[in-house]
Amino acid sequence: MTDLFVDPYIDLYADRMAGMSASEVRALFAVASRPDVVSLAGGMPFVNAIPAGDVMDVVDGVLRKHGSAALQYCGGIGLVGVREAVVRLMAEEDVEASADRVLITNGAQQALDLLGKIFLDAGDEVVVEEPSYVGAISAFSAYEPRFVQIPMDDQGMIVDELEAALRGGVRPKFVYAVPNFSNPAGVTMSLARRERLVEVCRAAGVPIVEDNPYGMLRFEGDAVPSLRSLDPANVIYLGTLSKVFAPGVRVGWALAEPGTLDRLVVAKEAADLCSSAFTQLVAERYLDGDRWRANLAALVSVYHARRDAMLEALEREFPASATWTRPAGGFYVWATLEGVDTPSLLPLAVEHRVAYVPGTAFYPDGRGGDRMRLSFCYPPEDAIREGIHRLGALLAEQSALRPAVGN
Amino acid sequence: MTDLFVDPYIDLYADRMAGMSASEVRALFAVASRPDVVSLAGGMPFVNAIPAGDVMDVVDGVLRKHGSAALQYCGGIGLVGVREAVVRLMAEEDVEASADRVLITNGAQQALDLLGKIFLDAGDEVVVEEPSYVGAISAFSAYEPRFVQIPMDDQGMIVDELEAALRGGVRPKFVYAVPNFSNPAGVTMSLARRERLVEVCRAAGVPIVEDNPYGMLRFEGDAVPSLRSLDPANVIYLGTLSKVFAPGVRVGWALAEPGTLDRLVVAKEAADLCSSAFTQLVAERYLDGDRWRANLAALVSVYHARRDAMLEALEREFPASATWTRPAGGFYVWATLEGVDTPSLLPLAVEHRVAYVPGTAFYPDGRGGDRMRLSFCYPPEDAIREGIHRLGALLAEQSALRPAVGN
Repeated sequence: MTDLFVDPYIDLYADRMAGMSASEVRALFAVASRPDVVSLAGGMPFVNAIPAGDVMDVVDGVLRKHGSAALQYCGGIGLVGVREAVVRLMAEEDVEASADRVLITNGAQQALDLLGKIFLDAGDEVVVEEPSYVGAISAFSAYEPRFVQIPMDDQGMIVDELEAALRGGVRPKFVYAVPNFSNPAGVTMSLARRERLVEVCRAAGVPIVEDNPYGMLRFEGDAVPSLRSLDPANVIYLGTLSKVFAPGVRVGWALAEPGTLDRLVVAKEAADLCSSAFTQLVAERYLDGDRWRANLAALVSVYHARRDAMLEALEREFPASATWTRPAGGFYVWATLEGVDTPSLLPLAVEHRVAYVPGTAFYPDGRGGDRMRLSFCYPPEDAIREGIHRLGALLAEQSALRPAVGN
Repeated sequence: MTDLFVDPYIDLYADRMAGMSASEVRALFAVASRPDVVSLAGGMPFVNAIPAGDVMDVVDGVLRKHGSAALQYCGGIGLVGVREAVVRLMAEEDVEASADRVLITNGAQQALDLLGKIFLDAGDEVVVEEPSYVGAISAFSAYEPRFVQIPMDDQGMIVDELEAALRGGVRPKFVYAVPNFSNPAGVTMSLARRERLVEVCRAAGVPIVEDNPYGMLRFEGDAVPSLRSLDPANVIYLGTLSKVFAPGVRVGWALAEPGTLDRLVVAKEAADLCSSAFTQLVAERYLDGDRWRANLAALVSVYHARRDAMLEALEREFPASATWTRPAGGFYVWATLEGVDTPSLLPLAVEHRVAYVPGTAFYPDGRGGDRMRLSFCYPPEDAIREGIHRLGALLAEQSALRPAVGN
């Protein structure tokens, strides 16, 4: 908006707005839409791989079968058919559930907002991974918590550090984790760490929020049991169709025990009455039969090849001092570049026609400036190679300049 | 859920949950779904009047024209095409707007939640009409405000009472009003009251939130200028396609000045990233051309006949001591029944196979027990007549019992 605009309401806004800055996501959309820029920034699934005919067929079936029900309000918990469908989908990842424990949300993002709403008073502590999903930090920030970040290594959250924090007096309302191919780190939590995490949280009486958007996007290796399957009564599980099918239907869900589920439903109804019956019916029908499996297999194979292209290009193009993760699935590589300030480098990178997300987005406190998130989900392999080449060249330039700056 | 379940998290929930009870809406869905009950309770539009062929044609066009864009994420503010379409729709009600001042939300309900989020700290005052929309009370309650209810008469909010409250030290973050065919009262605010309301609020530096879901459902008389048109810089305007088209697309919007709009967008992205691109494209295409006008005219004529049926039946069936509003549009009649306790009468009414919403739903403080909201939007005329007949018989029975109870 214009710089000259003076907002007459500036003293009326809630205190929480001080902690809610303009989303990184919004800035990224502007950059990513420039056709000459290779965006390694966004987390957009490659929905072009879903055959248009399949979608037409599904939507047509919904309108023929359900007619006006697709246009109407529905209960806040969501339509029973799609709740049953996501129960079957969770079973594919060995998560046992029943439809009466599932709330349909607008993507898993809304479940994060609702969890913040039902659990967090201002000043409450909440544990997140370090680094953690930027959208979770945004959603929880609205409820003015104190974030406690627990570092991760290549086995996931370092549970010893969580235990030390709890011993030190931290009393979180919940622990939030993305155990499979995490956003942004691309790390999968090992079974040993998972077992220890549920044990520590159970002993401390702290619920776990397990967010699993990427679990079905595995390129290699075996699936690791979900936290929910290790301790169903103490894990609130979040899923979404955004990566398995399409973000455009805005179908995510929370699986929780009765007391929590009831409160989530109350909060959902206060937030937007209900999710779209139309897109819920579309989601239900898309998951009927085996078509979704074939499409998902195609998507996974696309992402697998793109990850390989990115890892090969990084090996070739990035400075020797850089390190990065090697995700076995999902969308993201997380790179560490000592001596680089990724937020201030971003405008230069865009001039070099490549974009990434600066690491600071994934910390609530301004750290992470020597990290960047690189997404391989959306651009084709050649674009990924070209993007990493441009970034590598920029990093080499910067590195050559650095001693001069030190004079 | 089961009575035996003991929630281990009972001490972990946020303080705000004490003020957020299980929604009336949810209870109503259970009742309304029993086929033998005439539900005068729900606010479900009669979407069956939208020709199925129109919807098929629109959806088919979206998938052919936009393909994968319908399946993808979009920016939090919403797609520009649907924002332009709702700008044209607002112009039909003489509300001037531009697409860059419009945020797309999941129905207007989400706009209420986001406004609560950006404006309300715990303990802040917020002015609502008496009675006020139950969903607004729920949405705002999540931010723990102190509600100040200003009574209405058949001209709408009694602005003198608002002025007296302001003089008495009330400092609301905003004033929330439904000036056209209000929910639940069915009252339309007169022009004189509107002029005075914007004048008083401007002088006090208090923003107005104008919620206008029903404005295009007018049965008779002339439209009254919107609050927004009377003072664009101090009125945040909310609209929705739920009544003009269909709730199932979950397309509502907020029109606001830049500083407020920016914060609403930040809050929207934190809440659920974005609304469904698919349903936004469907909404945009539905509003293209003139088809929506013919369908809306058909809807208005259905509602008009149903209102007439309800008013005639009330005249015939309700006790002489009862009074009720005569709405010139919208969905609702608001009845006052002195000596009756509508919350405790409801289970008996359901036994008599008729349902309504007890007046208490529309007050944040438990008042309103001698009122009820009667919806004429969904049941056909015969069902409305039968429902009012059953209610009238029950009220007569109760009235006959009352002296005995007093012995």
